[in-house]
Amino acid sequence: LMVPFAYGQNSIPEVEALLAKMTLEEKIGQLNLLTPGGGIATGAVVSKNVEQKIKAGQVGGLFGVSGPDRIRIAQEMAVNHSRLKIPLLIGSDVIHGYKTTFPIPLGTSCSWDTELIQRTARIAAIEATADGINWNFSPMVDIARDPRWGRIAEGAGEDPFIGSAIAKAMVKGYQGEDISAANTMLACVKHFALYGASEAGRDYHTVDMSRIKMFNQYLPPYKAAVEVGVFSVMTSFNDIDGVPATGNKWLLNDVLRNQWGFTGFVVSDYTSVNEMTAHGLGDLQSVSTLALKAGLDMDMVGEGFLSTLKKSVAEGKITEAEITTACRRVLEAKYKLGLFDDPYRYLDSNRPKESILTKEHRQTARQVAAKSFVLLKNHNDILPLKKDSKIALVGPLADSRKNMLGTWAPTGDSDLAITVMEGFKNVAPEAEITYAKGANISDNNEFAKKINVFGPRIEIDRKSPEKLLKDALIAANKSDVIVAVVGEATEMSGEAASRTDISIPESQKKLIRALVATGKPVALVLMSGRPLTIPEEFDFPVAILQVWHPGVEAGNAVADVVFGDYNPSGKLTATWPRNVGQIPIYHSVKNTGRPASPKFEKFKSNYLDSPNTPLLPFGYGLSYTSFEYSNLTLNKTKINQDETINASITVANTGNYDGEEVVQLYLRDVVRSITPPMRQLKGFKKVFLKKGEQKTVTIQLSPDDLKFYNSAMEFVSEPGEFEVFMGTDSNCNLKQSFILN
Amino acid sequence: LMVPFAYGQNSIPEVEALLAKMTLEEKIGQLNLLTPGGGIATGAVVSKNVEQKIKAGQVGGLFGVSGPDRIRIAQEMAVNHSRLKIPLLIGSDVIHGYKTTFPIPLGTSCSWDTELIQRTARIAAIEATADGINWNFSPMVDIARDPRWGRIAEGAGEDPFIGSAIAKAMVKGYQGEDISAANTMLACVKHFALYGASEAGRDYHTVDMSRIKMFNQYLPPYKAAVEVGVFSVMTSFNDIDGVPATGNKWLLNDVLRNQWGFTGFVVSDYTSVNEMTAHGLGDLQSVSTLALKAGLDMDMVGEGFLSTLKKSVAEGKITEAEITTACRRVLEAKYKLGLFDDPYRYLDSNRPKESILTKEHRQTARQVAAKSFVLLKNHNDILPLKKDSKIALVGPLADSRKNMLGTWAPTGDSDLAITVMEGFKNVAPEAEITYAKGANISDNNEFAKKINVFGPRIEIDRKSPEKLLKDALIAANKSDVIVAVVGEATEMSGEAASRTDISIPESQKKLIRALVATGKPVALVLMSGRPLTIPEEFDFPVAILQVWHPGVEAGNAVADVVFGDYNPSGKLTATWPRNVGQIPIYHSVKNTGRPASPKFEKFKSNYLDSPNTPLLPFGYGLSYTSFEYSNLTLNKTKINQDETINASITVANTGNYDGEEVVQLYLRDVVRSITPPMRQLKGFKKVFLKKGEQKTVTIQLSPDDLKFYNSAMEFVSEPGEFEVFMGTDSNCNLKQSFILN
Repeated sequence: LMVPFAYGQNSIPEVEALLAKMTLEEKIGQLNLLTPGGGIATGAVVSKNVEQKIKAGQVGGLFGVSGPDRIRIAQEMAVNHSRLKIPLLIGSDVIHGYKTTFPIPLGTSCSWDTELIQRTARIAAIEATADGINWNFSPMVDIARDPRWGRIAEGAGEDPFIGSAIAKAMVKGYQGEDISAANTMLACVKHFALYGASEAGRDYHTVDMSRIKMFNQYLPPYKAAVEVGVFSVMTSFNDIDGVPATGNKWLLNDVLRNQWGFTGFVVSDYTSVNEMTAHGLGDLQSVSTLALKAGLDMDMVGEGFLSTLKKSVAEGKITEAEITTACRRVLEAKYKLGLFDDPYRYLDSNRPKESILTKEHRQTARQVAAKSFVLLKNHNDILPLKKDSKIALVGPLADSRKNMLGTWAPTGDSDLAITVMEGFKNVAPEAEITYAKGANISDNNEFAKKINVFGPRIEIDRKSPEKLLKDALIAANKSDVIVAVVGEATEMSGEAASRTDISIPESQKKLIRALVATGKPVALVLMSGRPLTIPEEFDFPVAILQVWHPGVEAGNAVADVVFGDYNPSGKLTATWPRNVGQIPIYHSVKNTGRPASPKFEKFKSNYLDSPNTPLLPFGYGLSYTSFEYSNLTLNKTKINQDETINASITVANTGNYDGEEVVQLYLRDVVRSITPPMRQLKGFKKVFLKKGEQKTVTIQLSPDDLKFYNSAMEFVSEPGEFEVFMGTDSNCNLKQSFILN
Repeated sequence: LMVPFAYGQNSIPEVEALLAKMTLEEKIGQLNLLTPGGGIATGAVVSKNVEQKIKAGQVGGLFGVSGPDRIRIAQEMAVNHSRLKIPLLIGSDVIHGYKTTFPIPLGTSCSWDTELIQRTARIAAIEATADGINWNFSPMVDIARDPRWGRIAEGAGEDPFIGSAIAKAMVKGYQGEDISAANTMLACVKHFALYGASEAGRDYHTVDMSRIKMFNQYLPPYKAAVEVGVFSVMTSFNDIDGVPATGNKWLLNDVLRNQWGFTGFVVSDYTSVNEMTAHGLGDLQSVSTLALKAGLDMDMVGEGFLSTLKKSVAEGKITEAEITTACRRVLEAKYKLGLFDDPYRYLDSNRPKESILTKEHRQTARQVAAKSFVLLKNHNDILPLKKDSKIALVGPLADSRKNMLGTWAPTGDSDLAITVMEGFKNVAPEAEITYAKGANISDNNEFAKKINVFGPRIEIDRKSPEKLLKDALIAANKSDVIVAVVGEATEMSGEAASRTDISIPESQKKLIRALVATGKPVALVLMSGRPLTIPEEFDFPVAILQVWHPGVEAGNAVADVVFGDYNPSGKLTATWPRNVGQIPIYHSVKNTGRPASPKFEKFKSNYLDSPNTPLLPFGYGLSYTSFEYSNLTLNKTKINQDETINASITVANTGNYDGEEVVQLYLRDVVRSITPPMRQLKGFKKVFLKKGEQKTVTIQLSPDDLKFYNSAMEFVSEPGEFEVFMGTDSNCNLKQSFILN
């Protein structure tokens, strides 16, 4: 276990000295995290109510306020007016970039480029800290295998291996090498735990899972964040074994702290302490007590701690020592940030201008966006387009600035986003472009209202759907090729944005059908915050470029790929089902006792009306060039428990473009004491190959890569045969075996 | 714990004496359960191979052979030719009736009439034992909350309370008062355990669940069967905590035997020992050893025990004592059946004629079928029809004998089934009926092939779909009312019959649309083995009578209800979703921390495109009359832990027909240490009310009804408030509260 800061409990003299001076009320105050509420809108930094609380020593941190000058006012309230002058933590939701908005995390994960992802987190930290933020509520590392769940957009998909790699990259990016530096901030891994397994894909719904599945499949990314020294953890809304995470002592105390050695502090999600009342666990005093005793240190927004803990101490339900422990953890974080040395460390009024939205940051946003795109299909090599093409650019997302940033980008500014139309003009000024909206994102007013809670995302046109379509067909007629930008509006995925039907809305399906019927080449640029069900569209003779919600440089990045300045290299990190009835579906399935054969057989594990296979497997993604794999070899045929083994494969670029390829390694533990998945991702490497070039790619498997949690919850490997698969996606079929002694 | 037979291990002198004489091989032979294979078809009783094994003492039981004369031949092979003359167990799959086929179990469960259900099991036992069977692979009590899973047809639906009541009724019906009587047989509760929770509703797929959910929601019906003394238990195909049930020591040894006190024997499902190899647990010897050591006693079909256990004893992997223990359990069952007294006890050649398919049995089949039907909708009181109506009887299931019995009725004979058309003529000879098929069950040839594995179920007509529809509209034109019999063919549900799309097939949807468009009154008689998604059909101004697959008296029972001789009283035992994207959906959901309000609110637990509520809730079902509920009262406001409490409600028949109503009681434990479901069924009573009559119905809650398994897996009740809801379905809103001290 790597814990970068060796401070244990009671080991920071300054903190202990401070604790010795604190009243019970002041300690409880440090456990209270607030957002200023109306303050932002009205111009005041924080609302009156919050101001009074800060001065009374009743607030440990704030979030939802930004800018050094504004934050300085809040920090001064704490430092100049509260009895003990304890500075505030200043938190923020910087999920995929601060002002320089990167693609949604699900998109970024499809780059499989952990260095680049770390750089996005670094840039986010540079910008956020320049704006006064010292604590970030990211990364979100919840494994998600149900694309109905809208928050799949915020994570890295279905797999614990790449999920763990990305979790580490983001924590390192945010926290840097020195957490007390002015351009690093506390990361907060969330939502601990299992939030991505919400039943029926409905957000905030109950979660149920065996412990063996938790440890093998869902917990690794959180653990990975702890291993690289994440300073804080946020609990999830859901229950686990019938106890909400926020009050789950087994989770926070036994697993996180005792097993994993986490030494930082744990914060609730927004009002998740209070919500335990609705969960059926008792009144606010009871659930606050439950949460504190379970190991929760900081209470976000709901003020259950602030309003009840003192009473609970008086009634003997908790001890002051328990509160002191929580308070110590919060104070230690402030100490490590350097706030006791200089409460204004993050509050340099000159920094925002220099550090935010720099050309270089936007350039990285453009690059990572292009690398997040996944070419799903490229019939007749429709893509890339020539830059002097006559193009009908159609679709409700082709010129929609408001939908480019994607979900949960509250610090971003959609007015800064480049539309696809603008990107086309920037990248291919010589192209002849005719634009038509073609369709509404949805024709359903009631649905649009739900999507537009944060501003207009679905704007139902004054023109009738028929007229919109007619205009698109006129544009199509004038052109050599059609590019249709279709899919989900920003708020169709994300928090509280679950869908039971994850297809392209009918209004746009009609447009696509009509465009295909013209017989002209059609490239679909598909935007979404989740895997969609697109069986009909996938069968059309079209190109499909999946671009998620690409962020502030959306249009430029789309144009870079559409016109071939960047050859797409993204690979899916979540399986795309054929239909909703296949959910949950993911690559690391078990064989079962009656595995289906390719041809239907009765009494095998299959469906009457659908193959078991998804439409598009995990790891899938095409390129403008083609890659051929050969010569998979292992450097050993037998290894001992403490040995590594190297798998090597030759990859050749056999097509007409230079390009990048993500070489993937999947492992199968043929026999073990608990049912093994047929394949598990255990390695990947992204390589660049000029056309005609070939390279040998070697991936090393460590002893831990062969381990799993057994029935006794021991992390072990078991002797026997292992199969190694390497190739272009999770269906790759070159295979070699070795024996573990 | 009630164990009707007090035999413990080593307590039957005859069995111990026999064991003392047995060789290791003979003991292993008793653990081997075979099916005669080709024998049935060719006229021989058993194949040559099986005959040799019986004589060599290598077979403990047979299944798949029937008739006293045929079974006598097999039994004589054992008794006259094997060294120790140990008689065979004779098993069979008598799932919903032997020759007198009752409705599918999901249908029967909708009667909520446990006495009647016990009678169906009794009749099944009378018929099966008359035909030589002494062991029945029923009841199937797997809780199922995923209607994609085809075997939901074979169980009692989603709820552990009614599931437990039905489990008990069926075990009692099969086993009777005296298991050694010639008309009782061993029951075998299956599939232990959790088989109904197959991931993504795909049969045989992996299962994952927390232990707290197992004990509170999925295990109670198996436990109920053990409590009334079931003699055998069958393991399930799925894994639990990563270990297939067939090799799961925790499940078979710790829970079933040690916690629940089960003293009978455990049999695998068909080749489920062998299938552990595909599960990834090892070769046949390894998995056979694993199964025996886990507590499995008998190996169905796969002969893993027969072929490997001796070797494993020699290699010290298991002991002979472990085999002796398993053998003892099998021999004790034979002893209790009385087979050692008289191996031919069940083999009276005169009985079949007297006991099978009696008029009385068929009458019960007709009665229970009528009581299984659920009136889902009755627009404008279209139903019941007058017996002298001019009726267009249309639909692919209106005259389809092959689809009446329903899934898994291998002992039944579909040629004996009454079609709906025949039933109409029997019950309403004065009606003027014009028949037209109207549509194929499905127009898809490839799909039909999968459904027709056991014979023709979907027969694609030589007439084109257009012509079929035209004929139906002609028939409709001539008539005053249209009855359309539509839905699933028999084999569209059941084992290995999972569907990702559970709507009515498109061919039939077109027919329904066209019929509705005529403007004539339309009654849909809907057949299926599962809840279907019928949002479109439910919105039509029609009547919908859900009749499942009604069994041998199908047509008569349908006619009884359609023409009003029986007023429907069935209530759903599984929730009907609006669409597949809502699955899993069931009535006993938890509140979550952010419960949705009726009107959409952002940041609540809901979907963007669907309500959280199902189309039809658990417990739902209409009547031709109407019932009004009033005056819910409790006889106490506070109770102690050991006290009962009575809830009473007045039910009035306020409509124009006599009728039966299932009065339901749901309990909410307002606050407890693990998240409580919002409602749990805890009582029901079926009452008959003449029109204008009213009755007070009282349901008693026992101390156990207030208990649940807490985090420590203790079965406890916790002090605090409980809410009692009573009424007509799980949405009932009359409420009273009491306090548990």
